[in-house]
Amino acid sequence: MTDPLRLGPGGEFDRIRAFLAGLPPAPGVRVGPGDDAAVLVDGTVLSTDMAVEGVHWNPAWTTPREAGWRAGAAALSDLAAMAAEPVGLLVSLAAPREGGAGDQAMAGIREVADAVGAPLLGGDLTRSPGPLVVDVVVVGRTGAPLLRSGARPGDELWVTGTLGGAHAALRAWRDGADPDPRARAAFARPHPRIQEARWLVQTLGARGGLDLSDGLAGDAAHLATASGVAVYLDEDQVRKVAFQGGVEGALHGGEDYELLVALPPGRGRGGVEEFRERFDLVMSPVGRVAAGSGVHLVPSGGGDPEPLRRGGWDHFQPAPDPPRPS
Amino acid sequence: MTDPLRLGPGGEFDRIRAFLAGLPPAPGVRVGPGDDAAVLVDGTVLSTDMAVEGVHWNPAWTTPREAGWRAGAAALSDLAAMAAEPVGLLVSLAAPREGGAGDQAMAGIREVADAVGAPLLGGDLTRSPGPLVVDVVVVGRTGAPLLRSGARPGDELWVTGTLGGAHAALRAWRDGADPDPRARAAFARPHPRIQEARWLVQTLGARGGLDLSDGLAGDAAHLATASGVAVYLDEDQVRKVAFQGGVEGALHGGEDYELLVALPPGRGRGGVEEFRERFDLVMSPVGRVAAGSGVHLVPSGGGDPEPLRRGGWDHFQPAPDPPRPS
Repeated sequence: MTDPLRLGPGGEFDRIRAFLAGLPPAPGVRVGPGDDAAVLVDGTVLSTDMAVEGVHWNPAWTTPREAGWRAGAAALSDLAAMAAEPVGLLVSLAAPREGGAGDQAMAGIREVADAVGAPLLGGDLTRSPGPLVVDVVVVGRTGAPLLRSGARPGDELWVTGTLGGAHAALRAWRDGADPDPRARAAFARPHPRIQEARWLVQTLGARGGLDLSDGLAGDAAHLATASGVAVYLDEDQVRKVAFQGGVEGALHGGEDYELLVALPPGRGRGGVEEFRERFDLVMSPVGRVAAGSGVHLVPSGGGDPEPLRRGGWDHFQPAPDPPRPS
Repeated sequence: MTDPLRLGPGGEFDRIRAFLAGLPPAPGVRVGPGDDAAVLVDGTVLSTDMAVEGVHWNPAWTTPREAGWRAGAAALSDLAAMAAEPVGLLVSLAAPREGGAGDQAMAGIREVADAVGAPLLGGDLTRSPGPLVVDVVVVGRTGAPLLRSGARPGDELWVTGTLGGAHAALRAWRDGADPDPRARAAFARPHPRIQEARWLVQTLGARGGLDLSDGLAGDAAHLATASGVAVYLDEDQVRKVAFQGGVEGALHGGEDYELLVALPPGRGRGGVEEFRERFDLVMSPVGRVAAGSGVHLVPSGGGDPEPLRRGGWDHFQPAPDPPRPS
């Protein structure tokens, strides 16, 4: 069976799999490596996200403060992915000795942490002889984590917000243009959907899901693989949630930090108005879950579904010049 | 009042203080930033430690695997400092695309984690365009954390093991020599004293303490400040625990990852034999706690105690060339 997620030897995912493989079963761990975060038996949720200047962001495009916000948001989004409430975060920074980039990045991290009510629990600060490096560890708590493995045939797939804005900003910068302000904001100040995720679980019964970091196609594949199901994405529906109608950017852009959830049939339609009023954000259907495997796109006009390939970004592949942040 | 720990503006500690200052009081947090680790009200202990190639270790002196062991040991030692039992750890790595240093560092981290029974709970792996960067987050649990603030006048101060070996290795390398094998091992493979710390609390009633990362003088100052007491270190006693009798290395070398604990009077003497049999490690008296403030050295031969200055290492100060790992 072809695994559309498989990258070549030396690819980042293979290396992560390699170092996470062969772990002894850990007592006290309910959900181990492989989902968006680890969950301990007492409901503690833990995740770590590292961001490196020149790899995850280009300092010519993004301020250190924005880079800090993004790094913090990416980490906090892992709590949203599990429908966990934040307990707090720990931040490690390796910063150049001069220029204040480290302090600015820290300010950005604190800003997004404050926005979701996550206190700073600790940190480490050291000198970097090279790029600014930020590692954000988030700690949360949940009685009933939202897992990638929870989608069931018959479920409807819904997403929050608009997809592909961050990708549109990157594309503009790479073309030497100024991004649309909304695209720039999507890239520089994404909002972790923490309260939204908890509401989707508690009120609409979301039973499988994750945050959208790899693009809808890639993250739908994570859901399909972990749940042992097939995912059918509807091109017309995806176009409606895509930034400026760009289906490719929504499917393969990534870094949206919105949510993809599997809802029991009919629940999404019933909750869409309350969701918008409560969070000032849209939620929209994008497809459905069926028996089978893989991710398939149902094309506009109603042709046969086509298997979707993942177009994600691998930090270990050679970087274009200038480096493409992701 | 002169604070011997105060560094100039822009020093690492000031910057850490600045970014940790002004935090809103966090509900659910029992011990916040400032001790060796954060402790939540449910007894969860959390700490993060970042290590950067060329700052914390010199790749000409230490293999990536040893660097990984040291980074893991430094982080796990924060659990020992709180007398917490390990729940597990999360590891973030930024590694060059080639050469295998990242995988080797990960192997070293797993080796020391296995040695203390701490499972890997999660991780993140990314490309570094510069140095190898390792961030290790440890998660532990304790009902009664050992705190820096727990020392009381009249307590005796005891340390585990030998101090200054890591410093002796560094000194040899900087002089272009091969270190003594025991000094090299002390630097490259320090052992986090996790079981030892729990035994010292549970069996001998240790009521204040921390791990020795900044050198005995600097860490005694942390204890004195947090407990609101004076610490008197006995030069003759310090010499007995010093690697090859080097008092300066024991006081100011750092990176020993042994323990400094305050014991009620007489308890250390009563437990020293069982400690040695149980852990194949010595524990030794080095001084006492009294009313007052600061750290003082009682010189050999019995002269007047002298105030001790901290000779710690600040990553933000200009580095010698080659960079001094610390």
